[in-house]
Amino acid sequence: MKFTELIDQRRSANNFIEGVQITEKDLDPIFRDVMLAPSSFNLQPSEYIVVMDDEMKEKIREAAYNQYKVHTASAVIIVTADRQAYEQTERLHQGMLALGILKDFEVQDIIEENKLFYESRGEQFKKEDAVRNGSLSAMFFMLAAKNHGWDTCPMIGFDQEKVRELLKIPYTHEIVLMITIGKEKKESRRLRGYRKPVGEFVSYL
Amino acid sequence: MKFTELIDQRRSANNFIEGVQITEKDLDPIFRDVMLAPSSFNLQPSEYIVVMDDEMKEKIREAAYNQYKVHTASAVIIVTADRQAYEQTERLHQGMLALGILKDFEVQDIIEENKLFYESRGEQFKKEDAVRNGSLSAMFFMLAAKNHGWDTCPMIGFDQEKVRELLKIPYTHEIVLMITIGKEKKESRRLRGYRKPVGEFVSYL
Repeated sequence: MKFTELIDQRRSANNFIEGVQITEKDLDPIFRDVMLAPSSFNLQPSEYIVVMDDEMKEKIREAAYNQYKVHTASAVIIVTADRQAYEQTERLHQGMLALGILKDFEVQDIIEENKLFYESRGEQFKKEDAVRNGSLSAMFFMLAAKNHGWDTCPMIGFDQEKVRELLKIPYTHEIVLMITIGKEKKESRRLRGYRKPVGEFVSYL
Repeated sequence: MKFTELIDQRRSANNFIEGVQITEKDLDPIFRDVMLAPSSFNLQPSEYIVVMDDEMKEKIREAAYNQYKVHTASAVIIVTADRQAYEQTERLHQGMLALGILKDFEVQDIIEENKLFYESRGEQFKKEDAVRNGSLSAMFFMLAAKNHGWDTCPMIGFDQEKVRELLKIPYTHEIVLMITIGKEKKESRRLRGYRKPVGEFVSYL
C-alpha cells in the first residue's frame, strides 16, 4: 500500500471482530518489517510478547481494567524495552567483526562509548531511552501491521505491575505499550478524533 | 511510495549534502501527515521546533558534541512533548462539542478521567508518557519525511539542558529527540547495521 493511503487508513481500532485468529505466520512478516526500525546506537532494545492464548489474554484484559477490545482482539501484544541493551554492544557487533567491516579495536571503542554514554547519564535516562526506542519500534509495528491487513490500537490504560507479573517481564525491561491487534469492527468506528492544525504544534526558528 | 519501499529506503543518514535549503513549504506536508499519528487519549502532546537559522543551528551543533551532520543538515528539529497535555482536554474537545458529537457532560467526564489517569500515576509516568507519545510521533515524522523525499537521522547524543536553554523550552515539556533532516550524502552511507532476527525479539504465548 502507498504510505499516504496507509496513514489515512490506519486508525486506532475502537473494537475488533470477535473470533478472528492470528498466527505466527501472519505476524512474522510484520516483525520482519519492524527489524528496519531505527534505535539508539542500533542497540535494538525493543522486545515483543505476543499473547494469543485465550486464558492469558483474559488475564491481560483484567489488568487493562477489563477493556472489551482486549477480549475481541486476535492477540494482545506487550512492547517492552531493555534498559541495559548497551551491555549487548559486543554481541551485536560480532557479525561486522566477522565480516572484517569493523576491526577489534573499533568494536572495543564502541563498547566503551556506549557504556560511558548510558552509565554517565544514569538510571532515569536509561528508562526514558527504553521508552523512546520501544515507542519508535511500536509505531513502525502499527504501520507495518496495517500494511499487512491488520488493525491495531495502542493502549496505555493498564496496570503495568500486574502485566509484569503475569508475563514475568524482568525488571531490566521497561513496559512501553500494549497493542491490541485484529480485524477492526468497522461498525464500531468513531469519527477520527480532532487534530490540532500544524501551526499549533510546529514552530520555526 | 509504497510502504515496503519506504521502510527499505529509509536509513538513518550518516551525513547530508551541505547547502541544501529546506523551507516551511517543504515541511508543511510532512507535518500534515504527522497530524495522523496516534497519541494517548488523542491528547497530541508532541511539538516540533524546526531550526533552520544557521547561527542557531551551529549552537545546537555545539550542544550535540559538535556532530558534523548537524552542520550539513538542512534543518535540525527538536521534538518535545508536553507532560501536562491532559490539561488541554477541554480545549481539544471543543470541536466535537460544537458539532454536537459529544455532549457537555461527556466532555466533563473525559476531562475528569484524563486528570485522574495522569495525576494518580504521578510525575514519573507523565514524563514517560511524554517520551512515549513524542517518539510515536517522531517515527511517523521520519517515515513521512522520507515519503516526501527527505532523509533524517534520529539523534540522542546531545546535551538536553543546553538545548533547553538555547530554545527556551519550558520545563513542562520533555525533550524527546533531535532529528536532523536534509538530503543524504550517499557517498557517506554505511552498510545498514546488523539487525537481530525476529526470533530474538519476539516471543509467543
